[in-house]
Amino acid sequence: MRLRIPYGELKTTIEKAMRNAGVPEEKAAICAEVHAFSSADGVESHGLNRVPRFIEYVNRGLVDVNADPEIISSRGAVERIDGHMGIGVTNALFAADRAVGLAVVHGIGCVVLRNTTHWMRGGSYVHRMAEQGFVGISWICAENVMPLWGSDEQSIGNNPFCIGIPREGSPVVLDMAMSQYAYGKLDVYAREGKQTEYPCGFDENGRATCDPGTVLRTRRIMPTGCWKGSGFALALDLVGMMIGNGRLSSEIDAASEGSCAGCSQVFIAYNPDLFSDREEISGKVEERLAAVNAAHPAEPSKTVQWPGQGASLRRRENLSQGIPVNEAVWNEVRRLAGAE
Amino acid sequence: MRLRIPYGELKTTIEKAMRNAGVPEEKAAICAEVHAFSSADGVESHGLNRVPRFIEYVNRGLVDVNADPEIISSRGAVERIDGHMGIGVTNALFAADRAVGLAVVHGIGCVVLRNTTHWMRGGSYVHRMAEQGFVGISWICAENVMPLWGSDEQSIGNNPFCIGIPREGSPVVLDMAMSQYAYGKLDVYAREGKQTEYPCGFDENGRATCDPGTVLRTRRIMPTGCWKGSGFALALDLVGMMIGNGRLSSEIDAASEGSCAGCSQVFIAYNPDLFSDREEISGKVEERLAAVNAAHPAEPSKTVQWPGQGASLRRRENLSQGIPVNEAVWNEVRRLAGAE
Repeated sequence: MRLRIPYGELKTTIEKAMRNAGVPEEKAAICAEVHAFSSADGVESHGLNRVPRFIEYVNRGLVDVNADPEIISSRGAVERIDGHMGIGVTNALFAADRAVGLAVVHGIGCVVLRNTTHWMRGGSYVHRMAEQGFVGISWICAENVMPLWGSDEQSIGNNPFCIGIPREGSPVVLDMAMSQYAYGKLDVYAREGKQTEYPCGFDENGRATCDPGTVLRTRRIMPTGCWKGSGFALALDLVGMMIGNGRLSSEIDAASEGSCAGCSQVFIAYNPDLFSDREEISGKVEERLAAVNAAHPAEPSKTVQWPGQGASLRRRENLSQGIPVNEAVWNEVRRLAGAE
Repeated sequence: MRLRIPYGELKTTIEKAMRNAGVPEEKAAICAEVHAFSSADGVESHGLNRVPRFIEYVNRGLVDVNADPEIISSRGAVERIDGHMGIGVTNALFAADRAVGLAVVHGIGCVVLRNTTHWMRGGSYVHRMAEQGFVGISWICAENVMPLWGSDEQSIGNNPFCIGIPREGSPVVLDMAMSQYAYGKLDVYAREGKQTEYPCGFDENGRATCDPGTVLRTRRIMPTGCWKGSGFALALDLVGMMIGNGRLSSEIDAASEGSCAGCSQVFIAYNPDLFSDREEISGKVEERLAAVNAAHPAEPSKTVQWPGQGASLRRRENLSQGIPVNEAVWNEVRRLAGAE
C-alpha cells in the first residue's frame, strides 16, 4: 500500500526514530531532513526506506553517532578529514561545506573525507554545494559489488559520481552510479516480472541478459556503459585513495561492517562567480536547459529532461500533496519513533 | 596495407608536414610528438590519421598557428585562459601545465581554456599531468554530435572525460567519450561488415540497434550507458561554461569552423604528495592494479586490465618494432612533409 504523508510529519517521525536510537538532537534533525528530502524527490530507496537499516547499523555499533569529523590535514585549497566512522550524512555535509569554504578563498576547494560511513543519496552533497551557489563534484569509493569488465567476480565498487550546477529554483544534479541498473532496481523489476530494457548484467555463461532475476543470482551486474563504467569506477577509487590515503573499494568489508564502512568520499567545489557576471552565466544555463527541453523528442508524447529535473518536479508535487511512502516501511519507522 | 615506421621517423615526418603548413618550429615539434605518441599507443585515429585534417584546418584558417594562449583571469587556485583559436594541442598542454603549477602551490589547481581548437586525443593531457606526479582530471565541451537521451536530434557533445593517475612506469589513463562507440569506430565496423556487441544507437523507428551502418545514417548514436552518458555530457558542458564563460556545445559551429571550434576544456590537477608518503600510496596503487589483473576472468584465456594498460603495452611493443600506420595515410603525410 502507498500512502502520502505530509513532509513535516515524515521528517519529525524520522527524527524521533533517530533520537530513540541515540542519535544526538542536532544530528538527528539534519539526517531526518536529508532522508525526507530524498523521499520528496522520489528517491525512496535512500529516503524513508533506508532509515531502518541506518538505525540497525547504529544499534550494531557500525556507525558511531557521537563521533565528529576532524580536519586532519589542511593546506591551500585542499583538506583531508577523518570521519571517525561517524554518521555518513552529517560527515559528508560537513565536508561539502568545507569544500565550499575553501572555494570562497581559493576559487576551488577539494576535501576528501575518509573513515566515514554510508552517505545515503550521493546527489545530496552536490545539491548542497549548488544551493550555496557553487559547482559541485563529488564521489564515493564504495565496496566491491560489481565485476570489473572482463571479470566475473565482484572486484569494483559502483562508486556514484555526482555533479551539481547552481541555478535559481532547483539545481541541476547528476547522480550517476557505475552500474547501469542498481541492484535495488533489479529487485523491483524481478518482483514485477519485468525485463530491463538494456542488458543489466551477465548470466552464468557470461552472456549479456536483460533478466533481473538472473543477475540478482549471478551478481554479475552490468557497469554503466559496459567497459567505460568499469574503468571510471576504478579510476575514482584510485583517485580517492591517492587524495585521502583511506580505504580502497577492495578494503571495505561490507559483510561484517556494513555497506560503505570506512569508505572515502571526495568533494570539489568551484566558485563560478570569480570571473563571471552571475546573471550572464545563469542566463546561459537557463538557455541551455530550455534547449534541452525543446530538443526534438524521439517519442512525440515525451519531453527531454535535464539531470535532476524529474526529481525537482516530483518534489514540488510531493511537497504539496504529501510524500509517497510504502505503508509497511512507514509503520516500521513509526514504531522506531515510538509512535505506537 | 599496414606498415611499421620507426617512432623517430614518424615524428620527424609529421613535424616537417606541420612546418610546411606554417606551424612555428617549436609548436610543430610538440604537436608531432603528441600525434606520434598517440599512434604509438595504438590510438591512430588521433595520431597520424588526424594530421592531414589538422593541416587542412590550418590551411582553411580555422586554426591560428601563431596565436598563443593568454591567461585572462587568475585568482587563488583557478585560472581562465583564452586560446585565441590557436593550436588545440599546444594550448591544452599549456593549460595542463598551468593546472599543475597551481596545484604545486595550492594543492589543487583548476584551469579552464576557452576559444581553443581540437585537442586531438583527450587522454594526452591527464597523461601529461600524471607524468609530473599529479592526479589529473580533464574534459572538453565539444559540439553537438549525439542526441540527448529521449531525443532524436543532435543535441549534446560527446565530451570526452579523462582521469590520469601517476605511477612509476605508465600512468593509469581513463579516456572516456560519452558515446558508447565513436562514429569512427562505427565506420570501421561498417566497412568490415560487423555488428557491434552492444547497441550502438537507434534506427529510424527509434529502436536500439547493433548495426553501425544504420547509426551512421540516422546519426542517433548511443550515449555511454544510455541515459547516464547523456546527462553526464550535459553536466560537463554546463560546468565548462560556468567556469569559463566560453561556448556551450550548442554554440559550436563545427560545419563551418571545424570540429571543436572555439570549444572549452577544463584541467584539474591535484598534488597527491601533500599529506601522504608517495611510496606508501604508490604501493597501494600497485597493489590495487595487481588485484585488477588478478581478478578472476570471465573468459579463461583473458586478463582483466586497468584503463591505459592496453595502450602502455602497445606502446612498448610499437616503440621497439615500429609504429603501425596505414600506408595511404603515411604516404599522404609524407607528401605533406615534402618527402616526394
